[in-house]
Amino acid sequence: MAGIEDKILSFQDYMKKITDFNSAIALLDWDSRTKMPKKGVAARSEALGTLSSTVFQMQVSPEMRAFLEELEAGKDQLDLKTRRMLEISRKFYDLNQKIPAARFHEFVVLRTQAEAVWQEAKEKSDFAMFSPYLAKIVDMTKEFIGYWGHKDHLYDTLLDMYEEGLTVSVLDPLFANVRKQTIAILDQIKDAPKPDKHFLERRFDPEKQRQFSEFILHQMGYDFDAGRLDETVHPFATGIAPGDVRVTTKYLPNFFNSALFGSIHEGGHALYEQNISDDLAGTPLHTGVSMGIHESQSRFWENIIGRSHEFWQRYFPDLQKMFPDELSDVTTDQFYKAVNAVEPSFIRIEADEVTYNLHIMLRYELEKALITGDLKVADLPGAWNDKMQDYLGITPPNDSEGVLQDVHWSDGSFGYFPSYSLGNIYGAQMIRALGKDIPDYREQVAKGEFSSIRHWLKTHIHQYGSLYKPDEILRKATGEGVDTSAIFDYFNRKFGRIYGF
Amino acid sequence: MAGIEDKILSFQDYMKKITDFNSAIALLDWDSRTKMPKKGVAARSEALGTLSSTVFQMQVSPEMRAFLEELEAGKDQLDLKTRRMLEISRKFYDLNQKIPAARFHEFVVLRTQAEAVWQEAKEKSDFAMFSPYLAKIVDMTKEFIGYWGHKDHLYDTLLDMYEEGLTVSVLDPLFANVRKQTIAILDQIKDAPKPDKHFLERRFDPEKQRQFSEFILHQMGYDFDAGRLDETVHPFATGIAPGDVRVTTKYLPNFFNSALFGSIHEGGHALYEQNISDDLAGTPLHTGVSMGIHESQSRFWENIIGRSHEFWQRYFPDLQKMFPDELSDVTTDQFYKAVNAVEPSFIRIEADEVTYNLHIMLRYELEKALITGDLKVADLPGAWNDKMQDYLGITPPNDSEGVLQDVHWSDGSFGYFPSYSLGNIYGAQMIRALGKDIPDYREQVAKGEFSSIRHWLKTHIHQYGSLYKPDEILRKATGEGVDTSAIFDYFNRKFGRIYGF
Repeated sequence: MAGIEDKILSFQDYMKKITDFNSAIALLDWDSRTKMPKKGVAARSEALGTLSSTVFQMQVSPEMRAFLEELEAGKDQLDLKTRRMLEISRKFYDLNQKIPAARFHEFVVLRTQAEAVWQEAKEKSDFAMFSPYLAKIVDMTKEFIGYWGHKDHLYDTLLDMYEEGLTVSVLDPLFANVRKQTIAILDQIKDAPKPDKHFLERRFDPEKQRQFSEFILHQMGYDFDAGRLDETVHPFATGIAPGDVRVTTKYLPNFFNSALFGSIHEGGHALYEQNISDDLAGTPLHTGVSMGIHESQSRFWENIIGRSHEFWQRYFPDLQKMFPDELSDVTTDQFYKAVNAVEPSFIRIEADEVTYNLHIMLRYELEKALITGDLKVADLPGAWNDKMQDYLGITPPNDSEGVLQDVHWSDGSFGYFPSYSLGNIYGAQMIRALGKDIPDYREQVAKGEFSSIRHWLKTHIHQYGSLYKPDEILRKATGEGVDTSAIFDYFNRKFGRIYGF
Repeated sequence: MAGIEDKILSFQDYMKKITDFNSAIALLDWDSRTKMPKKGVAARSEALGTLSSTVFQMQVSPEMRAFLEELEAGKDQLDLKTRRMLEISRKFYDLNQKIPAARFHEFVVLRTQAEAVWQEAKEKSDFAMFSPYLAKIVDMTKEFIGYWGHKDHLYDTLLDMYEEGLTVSVLDPLFANVRKQTIAILDQIKDAPKPDKHFLERRFDPEKQRQFSEFILHQMGYDFDAGRLDETVHPFATGIAPGDVRVTTKYLPNFFNSALFGSIHEGGHALYEQNISDDLAGTPLHTGVSMGIHESQSRFWENIIGRSHEFWQRYFPDLQKMFPDELSDVTTDQFYKAVNAVEPSFIRIEADEVTYNLHIMLRYELEKALITGDLKVADLPGAWNDKMQDYLGITPPNDSEGVLQDVHWSDGSFGYFPSYSLGNIYGAQMIRALGKDIPDYREQVAKGEFSSIRHWLKTHIHQYGSLYKPDEILRKATGEGVDTSAIFDYFNRKFGRIYGF
C-alpha cells in the first residue's frame, strides 16, 4: 500500500489545523467570560460561530471522509495515536455529517448569546429573561438528536458525548443506589450535633482570598508559567493549548469556601491538562478524555485532598496567618468540621460531598424530562423547586439560587451534569488504588508534599490525555470498572468520624 | 445578468468569514501581549500561523479569483461597499497569489516567535539574542518583495502596504523638507532657556497613573463598555471587533509622561475604531484605512489636543489633586512647558513633537538600507547609533534604549514607521480644517468639552473606516492633499510662544 505514509502525514496536518482552530475557540471563549467588554458580545458570537462552524465542517467534509476510508483500510500500519484520532474522527463523522452546516452555526451563535443573557438573568434572578433562549436551546438539541439518532433513550445520545458508552439504563440504577446510600448517611447524621460554621461567613477580604487561592494552587503544583488565575461569575478551567491552561474563581466577601474550594477544584482540572504528555501536542488528543474523568480530577483535589484533615493540619496555620482577625478563635479541628459540614443547601458548587450527588440527580431528572418533552421550559423553575424539596427538603428563595445557578444549560451542555457524580465515584476509586501504591500518602498531605500524588496521577491518568477511552483509563488506574463501593466506604469512614456514627 | 445578487451575497459571506477570522487573530495577538502565560508562546505561534494562513489562502484561492472575475464583470451593479471590498481583494490577490502558502505560514510563525524573543532581548539589552530572528525576517521580506514585484524602489512595495500609493520618490523630498524645517526650529531653540521638567521624573504611583489614564480616556470619550485598558511593555491599540477596541499603556514609576501620553495616543487610535459606521460591521472595511490616517488620529489626540495649553488649563488641577505631594509646587504653565520641552532623546515614543520626526527618518533610512542590502542586520546597532549622533547629536547608552526599543521590526512591519510622520502632517492639516468649522474649539478643550471635536472627526474621518482610500479621506476632511505647511505653521506658532522666537 504505497503512499499511506503521505496520507498519514496529511491526516496529521489536518488534525493539527483542527487543533489550532480549537485553541483559538478556547481563547475566544475564555476572553468572553473574563476580559471582553460588554459591547463585544454580538461580534464575538459571530466569530465563535464562524470558527466553530469551520471546525465542524472540517470534521464532516469529503476530505475527512477520504481520510477515514483510506486510513481505515490500512489500519494495521497506524501508530496508536493516529489510530485513536481516526477512531474519534469516525465517531464524530458518523454522528454529525447529517447536521446542516447552517443549523450548526446558528446553534453556536445562540449559545454564545444565551450565556450572556443567562449571566444577566442570574444577576437579576429573572428566569423569564433567559427562558426563550433556553427553550430554543432545548428545541435545537432535540432537533440535533433527530439527526444524530439514539439507542434506547433520547438522552443516551447526550450522555455518550461526555462519557463514551454511558446510557440511562446504566445511570438510573447507579444513581438509585447512590441515592439510597446517601439517604442512609443523612439519616445517621440528622440527629447529630451540627458543626459550628458561622465563622466561614465572616468578612474575608477578597484580595487576601485571591492571594490564598494563588498560594494553594502553587502548593498543589499548578504551574503559573503555563496558566493564570482570573475572576468570573462561574468558575472554570480551560486548556487553551499546551503550556496555557487557565483557571478562574469567584471571591465572595462573606463566604470563604467559594473561592478557596473553587480554586482547588479548577486547579484539579488544570493539573490534568498541564500534565498531558508533550507527545500529544498538536493533536486533538491533548486534552482530558471525558468530563467524568475530568471531574474525577477536580473533585479529587477539592474534596479528597482539599477537605481532608491532613490538608488542614498543614495549611490552617497559614490561613490563620492570612486572616488573623477572622480566624484566631478557630481551631484546625473546628475548621475541618466546618468545611465538611453536611447539610442541605441551594448551590451545587457549594454543597458538601454527601448531598452534592443529590443536586446532580435533580438536574439529571430535569434534563431527561426536558429532552423527552415531559417538562416544558416554562415549568422548569417550579419543577426545580419541587425536586429541591423532594431531594433536599428545602426550597430556594429565588431563581438565582435555584434554576439559574449553573452556566451549563445556557451552553447547551445537556448530559454533562452526571459527569460530576461519576467524577466523585471515580475519584474515590482512584484514591483507593493510589493508597495501595503510596501507603503513606496521608502523611505526605499533612506535610504539604504532593509530588508523589501528582506523579501517580500523571502516570496513571494525566499523561494519556484522550489516548484511551475513559473506561480504559479508569481500569488502567484502578484495575476495575465504575463501582460505588469506594465512595461509600470513604463517606462512611470520613463522616462517621466527624458525626460519630 | 441573472444571478449576480446571489454572487454578491456569497462574496459578502466570504468576506464576513475573513472578518471573523481576523477578529480571532486580533484577539490571539492581544492576549499574547497582555495575558498569555509564557509557556504558551510556542502553541500560540502555531495557532496564529494556522489562522493567518487560512485567511491568506482564502484571499488567494480559486474561489476568490472566481468572485473577482464575475463581480468585476458586473461592477456597475455593485454598491460602494461591495465595490471597495472587491478593489481591496483584487489588490491583495494580484500581490499575493504567487507567495507559496507554506512560506507565508512560516513567516507568521517566525514573527510571533521573534516578538517574544525581542521582548526578552529588549529587557536584557541583548541585540545578539534578537539578531538571527531579525535577519530571517529581513530575508523573508526581501524574498516576498521578489514575489510581490516592485516599482522604482524595492521599498515602495512595503510603503504601499501601509499607505496606498506612497513611494520613496514622494517620501524622500517630503522628509528632506521636514528635516530642513525641523533643523531651523531646533536652531532657534538651542540657545533659549530650557524648561524645567525635573518634576516629571518624581515617583508617580503606578496605580494612580492607571486611574488618571482611565479618567482621561473617559474624558476623551473612549467607551469602556466597548474596550479596556491593560498594561504592556509596548503600548498599542487594537480593534478586535465592533464593540471591542482595546488599548494598553505602560506605567513607569519614575517618568510620568509615558503612561499618560501613551494612553491618549492609543485612545486616539481607539476612538477612530470605535466610531466607524455600524454599516461596515462584518466586513473588512470596519477598520482604519491606513497607518498614516490611523497615526493622524493618535498623534492628533496625543499632541495637538493632549499637549495643548487649553488641555492642561482644564486638567492640571485634577492631576494635582491626584498627585498632591508630587505636583503641588508646579504651576499649569510650568507643567505645560515641561511636557512640551524640545530636546534630543533616545526613545521615539517619548520624544517631543519637533524631534519626533527625526526618529522616524532615522528608521526610514535604516529600513531602506536593510531592504536593499546596503546594511546588514549585524551592523544595525552601529548604524543606529551613528544616525542618532548625526540626526540628534546623542548616542544611546545601550541597545535597549536604541535599536531594540520598538516592537515593529520583530513583527516584520517594514514600511510602517513613515506613517507616524505622515500622521503628524495629516493631523496638523486636520486641525486647520476643523478650526474653520469650529472656530472656538480651543475654548471647548479648555472646558474639557470634546464632543464637537469628536463629532467632526467621526463625520469627516472615522465613520468611513476603509470605505475610501487614505488620500480620498484626507481630501474629504481637509480639501487638500498631503502638505507640510500646516504642521510647520503649528510648530512655529506653538514653540515660538514657548521658546520666544
